[in-house]
Amino acid sequence: MRKEKISSAVIRRLPRYYRHLDDLYRTGMVRISSSALAKSMGLTASQIRQDLSCFGGFGQQGYGYNVKRLRSEVAEILGMNRDHTVLILGAGNLGRALIENFPFSANGFRLVAAFDVNPSLVGTRLGGVPIHHMDTLEEFLRDGPASVGVLTVPTRVAVESARRLFDGGVTGIWNFTNVELPEQEMPGVRVENVHFADSLLTLSYMISEETV
Amino acid sequence: MRKEKISSAVIRRLPRYYRHLDDLYRTGMVRISSSALAKSMGLTASQIRQDLSCFGGFGQQGYGYNVKRLRSEVAEILGMNRDHTVLILGAGNLGRALIENFPFSANGFRLVAAFDVNPSLVGTRLGGVPIHHMDTLEEFLRDGPASVGVLTVPTRVAVESARRLFDGGVTGIWNFTNVELPEQEMPGVRVENVHFADSLLTLSYMISEETV
Repeated sequence: MRKEKISSAVIRRLPRYYRHLDDLYRTGMVRISSSALAKSMGLTASQIRQDLSCFGGFGQQGYGYNVKRLRSEVAEILGMNRDHTVLILGAGNLGRALIENFPFSANGFRLVAAFDVNPSLVGTRLGGVPIHHMDTLEEFLRDGPASVGVLTVPTRVAVESARRLFDGGVTGIWNFTNVELPEQEMPGVRVENVHFADSLLTLSYMISEETV
Repeated sequence: MRKEKISSAVIRRLPRYYRHLDDLYRTGMVRISSSALAKSMGLTASQIRQDLSCFGGFGQQGYGYNVKRLRSEVAEILGMNRDHTVLILGAGNLGRALIENFPFSANGFRLVAAFDVNPSLVGTRLGGVPIHHMDTLEEFLRDGPASVGVLTVPTRVAVESARRLFDGGVTGIWNFTNVELPEQEMPGVRVENVHFADSLLTLSYMISEETV
């Protein structure tokens, strides 16, 4: 799959495409028109044709998309077949929620370990995943590098934890702390933020606007 | 504050403005130039001036912004002073993480109750918040409507739970289930999604692109 320079807006939509195509695939649908796919996703058919054409254009005019093939192609573009490995730093409530409930493997990631400083957690397993002491992170990463580190640590240790992941060679950080990480000091590491507060404040704006 | 029609990209940036201004305010900074604010946020000064001018333009050329005032104005625009109330549906791992760790009040929301079906949770309190049985949601909303319902329920009951919130008169749904809600069937309700999978797949794309 050759990739052109793709806008970040298109990239942001790709996971949604995957999610919809995966749903359709699981219901047994074989083929879908761009207009039907558009309707189910709340987009226009021309937007869908344009988005997908960025990646080489799998659609045939008047014939629609092969659901299974398009799903696989989008998965490939998203890097879901790379055997990415994940570590979770911080096995508090949120870390535990991700460990026990988030389908990492269905998204192409293998969760190999979690790290915490809580003595009642270290040495145990959650959902089959071993919890190691944070002090052993460097040693763990020396033995086998990981693709992604998930930051679900307390705010005050967020930056320090990110640096340790960077030093240990991870290529991505999934950041759930409400802290902006010093990305310019971690060249080669991609950071994806999940800012709960920003999301709730966006909702706050929307519902307040209604009632002005 | 009179509001023009504001693009969703600007709205998405507003919570970040608030976060940065709040940090600056807490460090005691009184005044900041658009270029310094831009640098700390990774934006350009002209983008900041343009964004803030959408809301009436508080900056003075060559003089910068009053941090405290701008922070208050952004908070006002975001609806942080409306005494919004929140209910959480689903007190599993993720619900508990939000109840115990998310600073609702610092974001202008008052968390009044959580709902679950787990008999070992119903009737207890988490972080001071009462957990009621899901069956009593309608009764609770009849007694006092809530602004926002947070959906941290299992996927299979996501849509049904959203409809119950809609029927009960909430104006916003903060949706953590990986399910797209039927927004067109819930007129007047604004939905803000936190799609963990979409976020992780975006990161997957970014780190895979690096290594193509």
